[in-house]
Amino acid sequence: MNEYTLRAVGHVESTLTERAAAPRQPDEGAPDAWLVFDDRYVAALDGLLPGTDVLLLTWLDRADRDTLTVHPRGDVSRPLAGVFATRAPDRPNPIGLHLVHILAVAGNRVHVRNLEALDATPILDVKPLLAPDSTQR
Amino acid sequence: MNEYTLRAVGHVESTLTERAAAPRQPDEGAPDAWLVFDDRYVAALDGLLPGTDVLLLTWLDRADRDTLTVHPRGDVSRPLAGVFATRAPDRPNPIGLHLVHILAVAGNRVHVRNLEALDATPILDVKPLLAPDSTQR
Repeated sequence: MNEYTLRAVGHVESTLTERAAAPRQPDEGAPDAWLVFDDRYVAALDGLLPGTDVLLLTWLDRADRDTLTVHPRGDVSRPLAGVFATRAPDRPNPIGLHLVHILAVAGNRVHVRNLEALDATPILDVKPLLAPDSTQR
Repeated sequence: MNEYTLRAVGHVESTLTERAAAPRQPDEGAPDAWLVFDDRYVAALDGLLPGTDVLLLTWLDRADRDTLTVHPRGDVSRPLAGVFATRAPDRPNPIGLHLVHILAVAGNRVHVRNLEALDATPILDVKPLLAPDSTQR
């Protein structure tokens, strides 16, 4: 009950292959990467433009879904916090949310800057930024 | 293959009950609403603070998952666009992403301002804002 089925629409191609080596945030050294979409979803990419920023939603398939509290950033000197107050990948529904800059679009492939997702991470969705006319704060 | 199971962690309590009446964006008249979490997830709420903004992820359970292109904002005078370039609810994985302001936290219930999600919409996740120290652009 109250369960829903996600279907991957593509996957990440990246040089990042190990969770231990992955940066926690994209500004901490994440590499450029390719988003590779299944051919059946190419029509949904129409309108994605190089030079723009979008939100990428992924499925963090290596996360632990039973974790409810964590030490922020894995620092045990910091008190435990509920996962809904953190961006830890371990959480009941491990959906990754990434702000990415589109470098190029080529058929079913989208090249993006500084993506902290691991290679082969399933892609769920792409959305325009929230509130594009505001500062988003 | 390439399917994943989401489990609702709670649901929205709102006066909005019909999709036709729902505003397309929260600044277009969305009411305040309650996020009601299942008791087993209360520990994950620890650290959510009134007066702060968070990202709410929902499952848009009344969406059409076979739609790949739409007229933006339902305006047929506008050319079709791929759903990944729009925020239309109809899309392969209809995950709703909402920027909400927390008004109050009371046990398993969180009161938020201006939420455009319909009553009974399943809740998937809550996350801090992207890049809290930047303008997010």
